[in-house]
Amino acid sequence: MDIHNYMHALGREARAASRLVAAASTDAKNQALLAMAAAIRAQREQLLQANARDLAEARAAGLEAALIDRLTLTDKGIDAMAEGLEQVAALPDPVGEITDVKRRPSGIQVGKMRVPLGVIGIIYEARPNVTADAAALCLKSGNAAILRGGKEALHCNQAIAACVRAGLKAAHLPETAVQVVDTTDRAAVGELITMPQFVDVIVPRGGKGLIERISNDARVPVIKHLDGNCHVYVDSDADPAKVVPIVENAKTQRYGTCNTAESLLVAASVAERFLPDIGRALASHGVEMRACPTALPLLRGAGIDGRLLVEARDADWHEEYLAPIIAVKVVSGLDAAIMHINACSSGHTEAIVTENYSHAMRFLREVDSASVMVNASTRFADGFEYGLGAEIGISTDKIHARGPVGLEGLTSQKWIVFGNGEIRR
Amino acid sequence: MDIHNYMHALGREARAASRLVAAASTDAKNQALLAMAAAIRAQREQLLQANARDLAEARAAGLEAALIDRLTLTDKGIDAMAEGLEQVAALPDPVGEITDVKRRPSGIQVGKMRVPLGVIGIIYEARPNVTADAAALCLKSGNAAILRGGKEALHCNQAIAACVRAGLKAAHLPETAVQVVDTTDRAAVGELITMPQFVDVIVPRGGKGLIERISNDARVPVIKHLDGNCHVYVDSDADPAKVVPIVENAKTQRYGTCNTAESLLVAASVAERFLPDIGRALASHGVEMRACPTALPLLRGAGIDGRLLVEARDADWHEEYLAPIIAVKVVSGLDAAIMHINACSSGHTEAIVTENYSHAMRFLREVDSASVMVNASTRFADGFEYGLGAEIGISTDKIHARGPVGLEGLTSQKWIVFGNGEIRR
Repeated sequence: MDIHNYMHALGREARAASRLVAAASTDAKNQALLAMAAAIRAQREQLLQANARDLAEARAAGLEAALIDRLTLTDKGIDAMAEGLEQVAALPDPVGEITDVKRRPSGIQVGKMRVPLGVIGIIYEARPNVTADAAALCLKSGNAAILRGGKEALHCNQAIAACVRAGLKAAHLPETAVQVVDTTDRAAVGELITMPQFVDVIVPRGGKGLIERISNDARVPVIKHLDGNCHVYVDSDADPAKVVPIVENAKTQRYGTCNTAESLLVAASVAERFLPDIGRALASHGVEMRACPTALPLLRGAGIDGRLLVEARDADWHEEYLAPIIAVKVVSGLDAAIMHINACSSGHTEAIVTENYSHAMRFLREVDSASVMVNASTRFADGFEYGLGAEIGISTDKIHARGPVGLEGLTSQKWIVFGNGEIRR
Repeated sequence: MDIHNYMHALGREARAASRLVAAASTDAKNQALLAMAAAIRAQREQLLQANARDLAEARAAGLEAALIDRLTLTDKGIDAMAEGLEQVAALPDPVGEITDVKRRPSGIQVGKMRVPLGVIGIIYEARPNVTADAAALCLKSGNAAILRGGKEALHCNQAIAACVRAGLKAAHLPETAVQVVDTTDRAAVGELITMPQFVDVIVPRGGKGLIERISNDARVPVIKHLDGNCHVYVDSDADPAKVVPIVENAKTQRYGTCNTAESLLVAASVAERFLPDIGRALASHGVEMRACPTALPLLRGAGIDGRLLVEARDADWHEEYLAPIIAVKVVSGLDAAIMHINACSSGHTEAIVTENYSHAMRFLREVDSASVMVNASTRFADGFEYGLGAEIGISTDKIHARGPVGLEGLTSQKWIVFGNGEIRR
């Protein structure tokens, strides 16, 4: 098979289908989503068999346990996939929404209309559930999709794709509105990200290496999420009742998520007061603290197991540990905290703990990250917690979509003009 | 001079300055803009002298008349530049605006805050007024700017840059918030578009060739405006009183602008009725009509000078003439019009003339262009006419900014969370 021709054929089909799904009614899109969910439930046995085939091949190829785990589709996972499709059907349709209409002195009325982006290419690792999730979000937002999942999940992805197509067909929508790339050849990715005539945006979901590679080579815009080096800053005017719960939750509620805190900053004036309690709370979860020379003795003096205390190196201020480790630094105050964050953060999510109104407002305004919070755990940076209903990813870019990307992030706005025969003088 | 090091030094300065202008008060930014305007008026003689030097060198180098014309700065041009700065000072400040705040079940309140993009690189041809315009829009939107104007305008740009710096200094803002590239070496452009660590977005202003080159080579997002092949579609239910004025205005009010109509589509059922009047009106302006085989005899029968009637070739449906020429095609109706536009348009601006509500709404929704209009001239697609106050360009992209880009297009939105000690369960 000639990969170039194959991918261009998919692209052409997707572009043609995108016109039809862009104009599709909310009803038709929802009917398709519900039919997909029904098909997934009805095809439960086939999906499990396809997954078993993928798993057998993956084990034979010696895939590591964590990846096997992600690849595994359980009975519960199938239910979750179907429910996810039903949830997206229940979300409001963003397409066609008219806002900001204003009458101009010329007599015309100018406004904006929300419209799909067109064709979205999604590149992801061997996680079968992403196939159904991504299909649902792209369709509901009126876009056509080309999905390229990890090669280890090929059989399961093909089985899910058949359910997706059945749903589209049931709603009389083009089956080419969602296409799953049917080859494991890596050249397919190279083609997908370099055909701007057919693909409007790429959403890579996966490790930092994959995303950097795609961003470097893509000839279309990429909605990308790199790392999450999230900070909690405990301000001089922090409420003692909020400090430990927020730091503890931000660090320890889950270790492997991108909105987990990886760095803790504490204002010098309150370091002596707060650091021992924070340190003991983190130590109770077995969290290793990599501390600056000011923080280290304060933590040592709090009776914390010495094996959990390490002197921080420069690299620690930039690290996304995704593990029970946190960098700890005492800073002179708000200005130093903002400067440190803007220099070291990956721009994902940062939180301040403070009762000082002006400090809170300055932190919100001056910290240059996708999500900035006052008196809340960084763990809230999430499409569901923000009320988006679902998310296709979290963007650490500044252009177009920032932070959790839901249906709206897969759309754009065009200008519309309601005239009555006006001409320009 | 080592261009790589020079541009990276500019980039570092811009990045540092961007933090300060992002946090600057509206007052400080407006004060700077007014001081720039005052400096430009006060330095009138110096600006004219610098321009005279550029003009002398350009003439000696044999630059063509149209480019000499663009390069020329007149007394009136200097006034217009100063007034432009004052107008931007009078615009509302988009930075820091908080919108869409909603309380979530967890107790947090989630909203969005409008924030600058950071550092904007502007690449433009030898038009001195762009230096002041671009500086003003970037500063007001809280961004730092690196400006790279056409080499023929170097002396004038340097003189304007001195006025911009004087204004920044008067308002106690960093003079490095707006930097003009001081070398005519073309390698500077290559560096500017490939340093994502320092530059967040590139806005090229110039010919299609320049913009395509920049888009291909850039390693940062580009807000680009390619060509404007704008359509007017005269629907079966068009109001006869609106047809000729809109087509005539869209084509003939100005020929060289990107929102000028280049293609006319007419529904077959009304072609016989409307084409003769349209043809005579266009002929009275000397507009050449490149017509499809159905339109041609109808125009011929209307007594139009045969020299203005040409049979259209396929290429005509895709052409941006920027001249008194229009492509004319009879289509079967609304569906065919939408299909033709979505296949042939550059995605800039399209208008329908109709009294049919459903046709109007379908056209608005299904035509995939940055501006879509009902019963109005395409010439309205413009930042001033839309009420943006000023525009840095018109985007034919779908991502981020679409259509006329004003202050808001130079900003982005981040998520903000107002909490009260909430943690995630």
